[in-house]
Amino acid sequence: MSADVNASPDVLGRRQYRNGEKVFRASDPAWQAAADNGLIGIRAAGSSNNRLVVSDTGHEFVSLCSSAYLGLNYHPKVVAGAIEALRESGTTGLMVSNTRIRHELLGRLEDELSDLFQAQVLTGVSCSALTFGILPLLASGNLAPGGPRVMVFDRFAHLSMAYVKPIVADEALVLTSPHNDLNFLEDVCRKYPSVAYVADGAYSMGGTADLAGLRNLQDRYGLFLYLDDSHSLSIEGVRGEGFVRSQMSLNPLTIVVSTLHKGFGASGGAAMLGRPEWFNILQRHAGPVGWSQNMEITSVGAALASAAIHRSPELGELQQQLQRNIEYFDRRLPTSFSGNGLPVRVIPIGESDAAIKASAELFRRGFYSSAVFFPIVPHGEAGLRVMIRADISEQELGRFVDNVKELTDAE
Amino acid sequence: MSADVNASPDVLGRRQYRNGEKVFRASDPAWQAAADNGLIGIRAAGSSNNRLVVSDTGHEFVSLCSSAYLGLNYHPKVVAGAIEALRESGTTGLMVSNTRIRHELLGRLEDELSDLFQAQVLTGVSCSALTFGILPLLASGNLAPGGPRVMVFDRFAHLSMAYVKPIVADEALVLTSPHNDLNFLEDVCRKYPSVAYVADGAYSMGGTADLAGLRNLQDRYGLFLYLDDSHSLSIEGVRGEGFVRSQMSLNPLTIVVSTLHKGFGASGGAAMLGRPEWFNILQRHAGPVGWSQNMEITSVGAALASAAIHRSPELGELQQQLQRNIEYFDRRLPTSFSGNGLPVRVIPIGESDAAIKASAELFRRGFYSSAVFFPIVPHGEAGLRVMIRADISEQELGRFVDNVKELTDAE
Repeated sequence: MSADVNASPDVLGRRQYRNGEKVFRASDPAWQAAADNGLIGIRAAGSSNNRLVVSDTGHEFVSLCSSAYLGLNYHPKVVAGAIEALRESGTTGLMVSNTRIRHELLGRLEDELSDLFQAQVLTGVSCSALTFGILPLLASGNLAPGGPRVMVFDRFAHLSMAYVKPIVADEALVLTSPHNDLNFLEDVCRKYPSVAYVADGAYSMGGTADLAGLRNLQDRYGLFLYLDDSHSLSIEGVRGEGFVRSQMSLNPLTIVVSTLHKGFGASGGAAMLGRPEWFNILQRHAGPVGWSQNMEITSVGAALASAAIHRSPELGELQQQLQRNIEYFDRRLPTSFSGNGLPVRVIPIGESDAAIKASAELFRRGFYSSAVFFPIVPHGEAGLRVMIRADISEQELGRFVDNVKELTDAE
Repeated sequence: MSADVNASPDVLGRRQYRNGEKVFRASDPAWQAAADNGLIGIRAAGSSNNRLVVSDTGHEFVSLCSSAYLGLNYHPKVVAGAIEALRESGTTGLMVSNTRIRHELLGRLEDELSDLFQAQVLTGVSCSALTFGILPLLASGNLAPGGPRVMVFDRFAHLSMAYVKPIVADEALVLTSPHNDLNFLEDVCRKYPSVAYVADGAYSMGGTADLAGLRNLQDRYGLFLYLDDSHSLSIEGVRGEGFVRSQMSLNPLTIVVSTLHKGFGASGGAAMLGRPEWFNILQRHAGPVGWSQNMEITSVGAALASAAIHRSPELGELQQQLQRNIEYFDRRLPTSFSGNGLPVRVIPIGESDAAIKASAELFRRGFYSSAVFFPIVPHGEAGLRVMIRADISEQELGRFVDNVKELTDAE
């Protein structure tokens, strides 16, 4: 029996949205090469993002791979806020589904974020937990009228969104659009009455969504927008509301999600809801949103302190410092995203081996800049990802650029 | 055009594993009734799990819905550990993919948990993030030889596992077995060469997996076991290793995952890996496991302090106190799971309206015990879920039982 069963095609899934075995085969050699070059599984700690020390060797380095764009992860007030919440509450968390009972401090954080970002905010243990919960309900037609909704994912939408395509597809038709291709999207809107577009606001590998074009489609066709703005929260907008929200107010056909990690400096996730009534619907029906693990007290305390900074003049100062650093970087090392005001840059190298070699040599010289390769970027487009922060000096950034230029010219 | 498109069946997904719209329709009235009875969206804080105070009314109540079974969420050492980690590190976290760089304290926690639980431990931002990442790779055949693996989910497997069925099904055949039906499972093992069983160790609604039977199938057919033991970690086993691990050592065909929330008293998740080499494979390829958000410093500090308690005589004392409370409850109020030594009990009531009414009256009298109804439990099997803790006095638990008896007899 086993002979024909071994070959039985009915064990195989459709592999319509993923092929773990193939991706593994195609990418593991590069991961292993990165590991062999000492770039994977590093353990480190230190007094700032610019002074990290490898635990077992004492090697000191500057992080150029941290998404703490404003340096709030090391801000004394954020750390003190986390401590204060623990002291005040005397607990790590209530360990109960937040659908039923929320700790007062978490409720206070949601009130504060809702006011800060001028939208009903729902928190989650992470941004991807929110996405995993919300997208299937959006597809099933439970968030807006019009029945099941055709779900168009931008080809470059972050993996945290693309990952749930099979779940979403069990509810409604899933399509993948070429990156930022509004003609494709408009064709879908013409063909189907109820459509949603799932994309990043500011992309994790650089670049942004075409917001003006998307709003136009929204006006003309009732297109629903689900945008992840994790890479621009805090760093754009008067109150740090991010790339998308600094250019559009929310409407009843829009959800913007973001991490409270990265720029915001705490942890957990936040969804800005275009309709306040979604808060209850999502709590009750959006899977991971209603499970008992939400942001815990320590994350809440850090986030409350960070929110207070977002209301102070310090936010603008940090944003300006970040912009000065981005402009400096773009002047010294132009890339395709130069001038977009966002902090992620990819320096193209080509083959993964060369990117790994450059990253390893930079690390030896005291800078960690991630080698990125398939499936993070397409095959043959490997490079170095640089994440620029407010809390790095121009001098330090300049030293990094000098080294990159020397190494990539030499490649 | 729109007329026929509106009716177009090709917008609808297959609805093979989920039907959000139907579940919404079937369950939202009960959620709304619970909300109308003041049981949803409560905001509270307090000095212990037995002294919670509703923020806007001052109403005081005892939590019987907290999965902090040992009371470690309010343990002064756990809270102090969280504060100490923040002080020591000066940061909320490094905000970088842990595949590349882990904060030394997170590495230390993984070492500590690996030693405590005698297994290579991989942490995650939550237990479900680990499950979402691991199950598809298990299905694709990347964790053990034998090619794509038929994935059998127990019908009562926690939603955090059942939720990812469509993703898993894109890699390999997914089947759902009747609860604890080892005959069904053995039939599948006879038919297919490579099979995995996905289930809870100790179930969130009570009851356990048939470990002896499962180990037998593992020996005879090479069955892979993926077990979630979130509801028994800390509370069973000499080192709090949980229901499953207190009865079996790990082997190269087993993964046991658990939250570090609930009994453990911190937050985040942990996977105990049957093969140490999975650590690297999962870091690189298991989606949510490799994204930049992992446990952050505050969670790490609480978890380190909790781990220290797990090594001390206090763990046994708390476990015994919990057992005394469970035995007391079972004597006073026998249910179908009486005598299993686990802390979750469901008091059957029948219809959701009656369960909600009973829960509301109990809350008025100072006890929160969750009304559970479809889809948490099957239709017509609504009831009150009781979560027994070590940190509740027999007197308080007795008062709760008295009230339950009065109310459910009266029903």
